[in-house]
Amino acid sequence: MARIVLKFGGTSVGDTDRIKNVARRVKKEVDAGNEVAVVLSAMSGVTNQLVEFCRQIAAPHDQDAREYDAVVATGEQVTIGLLAMALQELGVPARSWMGWQVPIRSDGVHGKARIESIDTTEMVARMKAGQVAVVAGFQGIGPDNRVTTLGRGGSDTSAVALAAAMGADRCDIYTDVDGVYTTDPRIVAKARKLDKITYEEMLELASLGAKVLQTRSVEMAMKHRVRVQVLSSFVDAPGTLVCDEDEIVEKELVSGIAYSRDEAKITLVKVADRPGVAAAIFGPLAEAAVNVDMIVQNVSEDGKSTDLTFTVTKGDLDRAVKVLEARKEQLGFERLLPDSNVVKVSVIGVGMRSHAGIAQRMFQTLAEKSINIQVISTSEIKISVLIAEEYTELALRSLHSAYGLDAA
Amino acid sequence: MARIVLKFGGTSVGDTDRIKNVARRVKKEVDAGNEVAVVLSAMSGVTNQLVEFCRQIAAPHDQDAREYDAVVATGEQVTIGLLAMALQELGVPARSWMGWQVPIRSDGVHGKARIESIDTTEMVARMKAGQVAVVAGFQGIGPDNRVTTLGRGGSDTSAVALAAAMGADRCDIYTDVDGVYTTDPRIVAKARKLDKITYEEMLELASLGAKVLQTRSVEMAMKHRVRVQVLSSFVDAPGTLVCDEDEIVEKELVSGIAYSRDEAKITLVKVADRPGVAAAIFGPLAEAAVNVDMIVQNVSEDGKSTDLTFTVTKGDLDRAVKVLEARKEQLGFERLLPDSNVVKVSVIGVGMRSHAGIAQRMFQTLAEKSINIQVISTSEIKISVLIAEEYTELALRSLHSAYGLDAA
Repeated sequence: MARIVLKFGGTSVGDTDRIKNVARRVKKEVDAGNEVAVVLSAMSGVTNQLVEFCRQIAAPHDQDAREYDAVVATGEQVTIGLLAMALQELGVPARSWMGWQVPIRSDGVHGKARIESIDTTEMVARMKAGQVAVVAGFQGIGPDNRVTTLGRGGSDTSAVALAAAMGADRCDIYTDVDGVYTTDPRIVAKARKLDKITYEEMLELASLGAKVLQTRSVEMAMKHRVRVQVLSSFVDAPGTLVCDEDEIVEKELVSGIAYSRDEAKITLVKVADRPGVAAAIFGPLAEAAVNVDMIVQNVSEDGKSTDLTFTVTKGDLDRAVKVLEARKEQLGFERLLPDSNVVKVSVIGVGMRSHAGIAQRMFQTLAEKSINIQVISTSEIKISVLIAEEYTELALRSLHSAYGLDAA
Repeated sequence: MARIVLKFGGTSVGDTDRIKNVARRVKKEVDAGNEVAVVLSAMSGVTNQLVEFCRQIAAPHDQDAREYDAVVATGEQVTIGLLAMALQELGVPARSWMGWQVPIRSDGVHGKARIESIDTTEMVARMKAGQVAVVAGFQGIGPDNRVTTLGRGGSDTSAVALAAAMGADRCDIYTDVDGVYTTDPRIVAKARKLDKITYEEMLELASLGAKVLQTRSVEMAMKHRVRVQVLSSFVDAPGTLVCDEDEIVEKELVSGIAYSRDEAKITLVKVADRPGVAAAIFGPLAEAAVNVDMIVQNVSEDGKSTDLTFTVTKGDLDRAVKVLEARKEQLGFERLLPDSNVVKVSVIGVGMRSHAGIAQRMFQTLAEKSINIQVISTSEIKISVLIAEEYTELALRSLHSAYGLDAA
C-alpha cells in the first residue's frame, strides 16, 4: 500500500468522456490498495476562454489580479466536482476540495501566487478511510481570504506540493506525452524514453522549454524530494520517474539533448572596452524586463573596443533593440546586429560533473557537420551552444548519436 | 443617499459587453450617492451547460448534490469577477464576494438550500467606504463548509435576502421585462405596466407562473418587508415596485389577470360517496409527488356516488392517471376522464378583501362570451376558473376590459 498523488492536465479532462476515463484510472490505483489524492486542471480551452473574458473587460495590466483569479479559478472547480461524481458512479468514495477548503494557503501575489502551506489533516484522515480526495489544481487561498492562482501550469506545482505536504510515496503527472525523451521524438526518430531522470536534469530540460513539467514543480519536487512520475493518460504504460540521483543505478553520461527556438541574438559591434560598460548595457535591459541568457564578450583587439554578443527571447528582441539604440551614443557602440535565426542546443547530464570530454565531443560533432558555434555557455550539468536555426535537426541527430543515445 | 441592492439576471450579463453595460448602470447609482451591492446570476446558458456536464457523468438521481453544487456554482463566480473588473475600469471601487466569503450561510440541503443567515458586517463597512459589493447569487455555504446552491432562480432570493440582511432601502431586480403588467402583453395589447403591486398579489402572480420573480424571493421580501423593484436592464425606465399595501395610495380593486396553460383536469365519474374517499384518492397522489391544485366535488344525486374533478400540472397528468387507474376497484369509480385542453385564468387583487361583486363580474363576463366555467377556486385575494384552452385570449381580453384595466 502506498499514498500517491495523481495529477491530470487539461487534455486528460477535456470532456466528460475523458473525465470518466480518468475515473477508471484512479479506480485502478484505489483497487490496488493505495490511498489516492487527485489534482486536476481545468478542461482544455476553458482557462483560455476565461482569460479572454477578462481581456474583453480590461487590458491585462488594468485587471485587478484578485478578480482575475476569482474568474480563472473556476475551471478547476468544475472538473473536480465532475470527477468526484464519476468516481462515485464507479462505486469509489470521493469528494472534491477547492483550494480554500483544504486549505492550500498561498502568499498574496494574485495571478502568480506561491504555495506557503497545505493543511492535509482532514484530507488524509478521509483518504485513510478510503475516500479519494479530488483537489483543484492551480489555486489557493491568500492571506486576504480570497482565491489565488499559481500562474500557468500551476497544477503541476499543486500536485507536487500536495504530495510533499502529505508525505506521498509518489506523484504521478498524467499528461499527453508518455514520458521524458532523450530528445524531441518529432525531430529525432531514434529518441528514447527515459526510465528515470534526476531532478537537476529535469530542471534544465524544463527551463529549456521541454513542456513536460513546469520548472517550479520540478524545483519543488527537488526541494522536498518528491518522486515524480511523468506518464500518459492515454497509454497504459510506465512513464519516466524524476528522482534523486541515488535512485538511478546506471547513470548515463548524458541524459538528453534539448533545444530552444525561442532565442534571438544581439551583437554590439565595437563597444567601448572600459570598466562599467557591461553594467551600462545590461542595467537598462533588466529595467525593461528583458531577460538576457547567454553572453559572450570577445577579447579586445585594439584595447579600446570589443564586440559583445548576447541572447534574449524572441519576444523581447524588439524591445531590447529599442532600449539599446536609444543609448547608442552613451554606450559608444558602432553597430547593433539583431539575429533571430538562431537556435540554442543543449546537452544535459549529471555525468558531466565527474567526466571530462563531454563538451569536447559536442564541439567536435558539430564541427564535423560544419556547424558554426556562435555562442557557448555552460553550467555544472549542461552545455549550450547557439547555432544557426537551419541546422537544428542536423545538430540534434548528430549529437544524439554521438552520445550513444540512439534507440537500438 | 440610500442603501440599495441591484440584481441582474443571466441575459443581463450574457456576454462581456452586457456586463460593461451593467457596470454603467451600477455607476449611475453610485454617482447618485448610494451605497450599492450587486447580486449576479451566471451568464445565460452557462448554468445549463454545467448541469449538462453533470448529467453526462451521472443520472440526476445518482449525482452527489454536493458535487453538483460545486460545479454549477462556478457560473456566478465568473460574472462577479468580471463585473468587479468592469466597475474598476469605470473608476468605481468594487470587489467580488463568493457565497463562502460573505459568508451567506445556508442549510445543508444541497441543490435546494435555504439561506439561514448572512453576515454583512465587513461588506457594509466597505460599502460605506465607497466600495461596490458584487455578490454571487444562487449560492451559499452549508454547515459542512461546502458550497450550496439555492435551486433555480435562486439569485432573486439571494438579492432579497441580502437586502433584508443589510437593511437596504430597496432591492432592484433587473430582468428582461420592464415590470409587472396587468396581464400578458403578448395576448392583451392594452395591458398596462403597474407602478406598484402588493407582496400578496405578486406572490399569487409568481405562483401562477408569471416568470418575473421567483415565488421564494417574493415570500422572503414579504416576510422581511423588503421593497423590491422589477425593471428592465435594457430600457432606462422605472419598473414596478413590489411593496406593502400601505405604500399604495390608490389601490385598484383588481391588479391583474393571470393565466396558466400548465394545467390538466381529471374527472372521476361516479366515485363512491362515503367518508374517507377523498383521502383514498389524494393520499396516493401525494405519495407519487403529484401536486393537486383545484378540486371540486359535485353534490351527490343518488346519495351513493358523485363526480370528482381536480387539476394537476400537465407534466404530472400521466403519472396521476396511472396511480388512479391502478386503484380503480378500491376507489370504486366508474370512469376516469383526463383533459389537458384547459387553462386556468385568475383575477388577482387585494381589493377583493373589502369589495363584494368581484367574482360575480368575472362569472358574468365569461358568461356573456359563452365561456363555460369548469372549476372554480378562490383565495382571499384571487379567483381562479378553469376553462377550455381555446378561450384563453378571449377570456383575458374580456376580463381585462371588464375590470377597467385597459390602457387609455
